[in-house]
Amino acid sequence: MTIQPRLGAGLKDYLPSEMIVRQQMFDTIRNVFERFGFSPLDTPGLEVEEILTGGDPDFNKMIFRARLRDGDEGLALRFDLTVALARVVAQYPNDISKPFKRYQVGKVWRGERPQAGRFREFVQFDADTVGCAEMTADAEIVALIYETMTALGFQNFLTKVNNRKILNGLPEYIGFDPDKTTEVLRFIDKMEKLGWENISGELADKLGFTTEQLALLKAFLDFRGGDQIDTVNGVKKLMANSPTAMEGARELEEIVSYVQALGVPSDKWTIDLSVARGLGYYTGPVFETVLTDLPSIGSVFSGGRFDDLVSRFAPVNIPATGASVGVDRLFAAMQKLGLTGTRRTVTQILILDFDSSCREDCHRLASSIRQAGFRTEIYMGKEKGIKGQLAYAVREDIPIVIIFGGNERENNVVGIKCLATRRQFDVPLLEVNKKIKEILVS
Amino acid sequence: MTIQPRLGAGLKDYLPSEMIVRQQMFDTIRNVFERFGFSPLDTPGLEVEEILTGGDPDFNKMIFRARLRDGDEGLALRFDLTVALARVVAQYPNDISKPFKRYQVGKVWRGERPQAGRFREFVQFDADTVGCAEMTADAEIVALIYETMTALGFQNFLTKVNNRKILNGLPEYIGFDPDKTTEVLRFIDKMEKLGWENISGELADKLGFTTEQLALLKAFLDFRGGDQIDTVNGVKKLMANSPTAMEGARELEEIVSYVQALGVPSDKWTIDLSVARGLGYYTGPVFETVLTDLPSIGSVFSGGRFDDLVSRFAPVNIPATGASVGVDRLFAAMQKLGLTGTRRTVTQILILDFDSSCREDCHRLASSIRQAGFRTEIYMGKEKGIKGQLAYAVREDIPIVIIFGGNERENNVVGIKCLATRRQFDVPLLEVNKKIKEILVS
Repeated sequence: MTIQPRLGAGLKDYLPSEMIVRQQMFDTIRNVFERFGFSPLDTPGLEVEEILTGGDPDFNKMIFRARLRDGDEGLALRFDLTVALARVVAQYPNDISKPFKRYQVGKVWRGERPQAGRFREFVQFDADTVGCAEMTADAEIVALIYETMTALGFQNFLTKVNNRKILNGLPEYIGFDPDKTTEVLRFIDKMEKLGWENISGELADKLGFTTEQLALLKAFLDFRGGDQIDTVNGVKKLMANSPTAMEGARELEEIVSYVQALGVPSDKWTIDLSVARGLGYYTGPVFETVLTDLPSIGSVFSGGRFDDLVSRFAPVNIPATGASVGVDRLFAAMQKLGLTGTRRTVTQILILDFDSSCREDCHRLASSIRQAGFRTEIYMGKEKGIKGQLAYAVREDIPIVIIFGGNERENNVVGIKCLATRRQFDVPLLEVNKKIKEILVS
Repeated sequence: MTIQPRLGAGLKDYLPSEMIVRQQMFDTIRNVFERFGFSPLDTPGLEVEEILTGGDPDFNKMIFRARLRDGDEGLALRFDLTVALARVVAQYPNDISKPFKRYQVGKVWRGERPQAGRFREFVQFDADTVGCAEMTADAEIVALIYETMTALGFQNFLTKVNNRKILNGLPEYIGFDPDKTTEVLRFIDKMEKLGWENISGELADKLGFTTEQLALLKAFLDFRGGDQIDTVNGVKKLMANSPTAMEGARELEEIVSYVQALGVPSDKWTIDLSVARGLGYYTGPVFETVLTDLPSIGSVFSGGRFDDLVSRFAPVNIPATGASVGVDRLFAAMQKLGLTGTRRTVTQILILDFDSSCREDCHRLASSIRQAGFRTEIYMGKEKGIKGQLAYAVREDIPIVIIFGGNERENNVVGIKCLATRRQFDVPLLEVNKKIKEILVS
């Protein structure tokens, strides 16, 4: 009895037609990350459950526990790469110099309700600088995002930068109990969906906001600066009564100067006071990147500063800042925007196999062409004749076909067919690689 | 309360010092695989449990089941990449042309008893050709192994090739019930450990082997050919009474001629009749690669032909052949043999940060050097002075240090220190990238 081939809900295969371009995308990201001096780290997909959750029951719903038939090893699948970074920094204090600039790419798993565009297994690609409290590290993340997005071929994107300290300054600015900050931020988060009328009503009802307090909040929400530095100056004026917000603005001011020095064009990033990036977790600057052509796809490259990263695993405070590429979202966006070609195979050269007396010669040819660095395949399908084998090359979109049979051997030549031009010609054996190179670069 | 940072049993972290060279190893393998026209595939780490086990209870002990708190989705972690290949071939018949030459690299998980050098999570790197019954595909795998091992820097290795059809010919050759083949092979497998005396005794006792039968088996086990083709001819003579073995020898003969044509030196591979590669599964040629410097490490790159691959998922027989790199074993071997350098960071250039009035200039410099493709880091640690920052460069083994402070700015130069030669000199701003290139290639 055969088993029906299928995937579990929320899981996805990447066939070569997608995986070839996905691989190129990974290479591009890696290349940019390394140019900024981030080094690769790898950690297991399986972690001790307590390490992952930190005892927080909220994570219990989300994680996949991993169980052997004979016993429970207390392991679960990681849901992000950040927890492992914190663990590693705490676990190997002598092997890791600080600042520790690392990137990591890997699969993560979340038991979310499967729905369109949301997967239960997906790839994260993170870069973080651990052990630097200076804004220079945060500015570098903004530049890293810009260089990565540009290298991937995106032209229309915007990185929104904010500072959690500005949001944390709201109690001082407006005058309310700091313990209510999370609640107030939650209301602000719903602004776009529910509108000011509803939000202000709720704030008055539930948190007892006065008309004056609501006016201050409205002024904050309505605030729009001009360019980056103008925005920072505006915040400084608006929230002058909040030391926390002023500290946040000062940090942003520093970031502005470094980001400019790092060559990020001013239309590719902005300071946006509405960006919060979740409620706990971040402690300073936060980053969020959207595609202005495809806003519905959400944030594709986000992060921020989280200065209590390691404290779960060691009684120390180690500052850290970084960001994570939403690889699967970004890949979907690249496909929608036509930034990825479709290639069915990596093969550049197909050597036909239609004359079995020449098969050894064909293998010799293949070996020589591969030595020259070209991706070369000998035809191994069921078609026996040249025509059928050529059809395979066309279907697989292989640019060059090599024809070598008894005739060619007799004349000491190799037949080359270029599928783009449909031209076919013979070249001497020793000139095959040269000719291939000419065709491929043309 | 802090949580002790730790890993589960049989799991491993790869810090940058290991991961940088590991990454290079992956790139090298990928590059060789692609040159042979294998295209990348990716499938989820989580699969439906029934897909993985095929109902075979033997796998039940080995697999990690993945469970959400609220309900059992019937998922488990893959233990190899081959099952997913079979599933993919059966699941997307219209999207996949045959022969389907794919490679896949990914983590797999096995609930084995943790012990030295055996991990519960490790990386497999497979190349397989699906849909080609011809020996040309198998010969290519032998060449693929050779090219990969060579590209990784190995000089002393040997790929042992056999054909399961020769082993399956033993009942005909010796004269015993073919149903006992597995049992007989199990005895042969123990030869090295237990010696002929014990094995022959057991075969006589348990399977009733006669003296004549034992003599035939002994002749088989003692058989040694000269070069590859001599070995094939010897087998043909020895086992002439077994049509199955003769078919196996004929296939090996074909492989010999193609492998030679593919340029694999004859001292890098051999035909070894003792290689079985497990008991079920393989149906034709099998491959096993050992490091002659480190035989104890076992097989590092193995595989074979498995012509009933897809039958679990579809009522068809699709031939397939391929091999899998034991990445973690091979990496351990490379470390032991000194084939991997140790690099603590990818960074090539460290820009010091000792004069805060020049920080923006340093970021501008960093941006310009990165644009030229060099991996560049601005110092972000706690040391404020040049000396302490230089010590960081030495510790991290960063080859070039850039010094840019007030003096340099005044004179429109950049200080460059080459750590290998300990020489330091000033160069004009516009010549920085040129000078860096000179130092790095020297």
